[in-house]
This record gives sequence, structure tokens and C-alpha cells, in this order.
Amino acid sequence: MKIIVIGSKGILGSAVAKALGAHGHEVVGASRTGDVKVDLEDRASVERLFASVKDIDAVISCAGEAAFKPLLALTDADYDLCIRSKMMGQVWLARIAVDHVKDGGSITLTTGILAQKPMPGGAAISLINSGLEGFVRAAALEMPRGLRVNAVSPPWIKETMVKLGMDPGPGLSADDCAKAYVAAVLGKHQGTILDATALAAGA
Amino acid sequence: MKIIVIGSKGILGSAVAKALGAHGHEVVGASRTGDVKVDLEDRASVERLFASVKDIDAVISCAGEAAFKPLLALTDADYDLCIRSKMMGQVWLARIAVDHVKDGGSITLTTGILAQKPMPGGAAISLINSGLEGFVRAAALEMPRGLRVNAVSPPWIKETMVKLGMDPGPGLSADDCAKAYVAAVLGKHQGTILDATALAAGA
Repeated sequence: MKIIVIGSKGILGSAVAKALGAHGHEVVGASRTGDVKVDLEDRASVERLFASVKDIDAVISCAGEAAFKPLLALTDADYDLCIRSKMMGQVWLARIAVDHVKDGGSITLTTGILAQKPMPGGAAISLINSGLEGFVRAAALEMPRGLRVNAVSPPWIKETMVKLGMDPGPGLSADDCAKAYVAAVLGKHQGTILDATALAAGA
Repeated sequence: MKIIVIGSKGILGSAVAKALGAHGHEVVGASRTGDVKVDLEDRASVERLFASVKDIDAVISCAGEAAFKPLLALTDADYDLCIRSKMMGQVWLARIAVDHVKDGGSITLTTGILAQKPMPGGAAISLINSGLEGFVRAAALEMPRGLRVNAVSPPWIKETMVKLGMDPGPGLSADDCAKAYVAAVLGKHQGTILDATALAAGA
């Protein structure tokens, strides 16, 4: 398969690209920097990506920014970033992908554990992650041409936790998390939120 | 208790106001038209509401617009309406209410059945209803002064279905739906999504 991975220079996206490559798939890595450029906040760049990369079997998004900040400190700008980038960036990616991915192909977005397991500081992220999950469940009912749409819900990623100075103990490695994206692409899931922790544990 | 009901001229809001009045509470009905004006899309109007109505024990929102339209027909304007009105209108209502509702008081928002039970045409509404549910679960962890925040998830309301020319058979009456709002205000729920159908059935 020919698969676009958006956010392919990130901790998670690079692990997903590597995992799909190891399965023998042709991976086109796209990111805000690098040869194949895309920025989920810039819809024209998403259109250009699909205009330049043809015959796509699957699109995976491991991109989107969000603001982690106490509820009472969240500003308009924080919510706007979350909505514009991770939430609507991925919604419009899915919408545009519907016009370009090959019949029977798949679209896989990224939500996150805060959708189901909130924590202080995560209100804006819970908002958009839960929103994306609702969108995926609903959009799946209207996919044309046998297309599938799903989301992976990653827990905290060990490598990210190390970068943030957190104890990576409770986290999942990016490589283990990537298994859920491979499952979303190779499986028959439709409108499903794949729990990366459960899938890494062999569930 | 002194309770503000936003959207008090709507089918659901008027039933909620009536039910709370029947329980002996003082209800201040607020809406885009009428004596006490508020528009969730106009944050200044929400600030003015709390500046003019004092000693509030609870705030209930039965307001917010959204777009029901096939996935492939949803436009920027449709998503913007959903996000600006029902989603962020209620998020900011909750945030502003935190600064004004009395210690131990409550904030009750409205999501909807499409968060959990999607249907074709509902992708934008599933997005924002699910988002609001995630927000409520998370915001509850950071409520100061013993405040509580919850949401009621109504099914299709019979009176709305009649208005839309649908068969009201599978719906719930606005009066029955109002019971969930009364439960949210009078109970001890925190970060809970109250299922109006289940509560009306006595669950």
C-alpha cells in the first residue's frame, strides 16, 4: 500500500512510518518541514499534498497541536489553537482525503487518552479529543466508495514524557503505540477508536 | 435555589424552567429575546447576565445552535456555527459561571444523543456533543469552591420532531427530558453526562 503519514517527523509519526515500512508499505512522510510539506492548519497545503501524491491507499494523521493548561487559565487563543489545529485540522484532512484516497482505502486520525481519562490541565484537550472521537464514529456512517475512517487514541508516549521531564514509567513507547495505527490501516475497523495501550498489550 | 435557565423560550428550556418552578425554585429565564437577554455566541452578553442577576445557585444551558447536514455537504460555515454556538458558547458559559455561581452551586450544559449514537447527517453535531462531554468530564476535576459541572444528553425531543415533521414515536417529551436537568441541579453529580432517556425511565 501507499500510505501518507502526516506528522512524520514527530515522535509518534516517525514510529508509525517506520512500522508501516517494516510491513513493506510505501510510506510518504509529510510534515511542516521537509520535502513533502503539509500543515493541518493550512487547508490549501492539504489539497496540494493530495494533488502531488497520487494513488493513496491510506492517510494517517499523527499531527495537531493542543494546549495543556489549567481550566481557569485557558484563553481564547488556547482553545482556538486546539480547535484549529488538532480538531478541525484533522476533520478537514479527513474530508479532503475522502475526495482523494483510493476506493476501499482508509483514513486514520489521532485522538488521545484525555478523551476518556481526563486529568487536571486537560480540559481543552479532552474537549477536542472527545470531539474527534464523536466525529469519527459519525463520519464512518457516511463514507463513500468503501472508505474507512478511524482514530487511534494513544496514551502518554514514553519518549514525549522524557522530553517533558516526566517519569516515562506509565507511558507507552512510540513503537508500541504505532501498532494501533498499523492495525487501523491493515484491519477492517470502521468508525472505531483504537486504544493503543490495549492493542500494544495484544488485546 | 435561584437558577438561571438559558434558552428558556425553547421547547426544552421552557420545560426545564417549568419543572424547576414546580419544585419551588426561583427560575430566571434568559434567552436571545425577552426581558433577560443572553446570546451564548456573545460572551459579553453572558458577562452582563451574571452582572445583573446575583446570588445564583445554578446555571442551566438549553441553548446552542448546530448544523445537521450530510458529511460531504458540511461547510466551514456549518462547522463554525456548531463550534461557536453550541460548543464554545457553552464552554465559555461554564467558564464565566465559575466566577459567579455561589459556592457549592452547579453548572449544567446540554450535549445530545448524537455524541454516543451517531446517525447520517450528524457528523458536525457528534463532533461538538462529544467534545462537550469530554470537556465536562475534565472541567469537573478543576472546579473551585465546591462547584459542580455536568451535562444532560437529551435524545430527540417529541415536540421538536413534530415541528420537523418527523414521527415523534421514538422521542422523549420535553417534560420528561427536563427531569434530567432537575436531577443534575438537585443531585450530587460531578463531571457526569446524564442520560435523559434513562432518567425519564426511572433509571
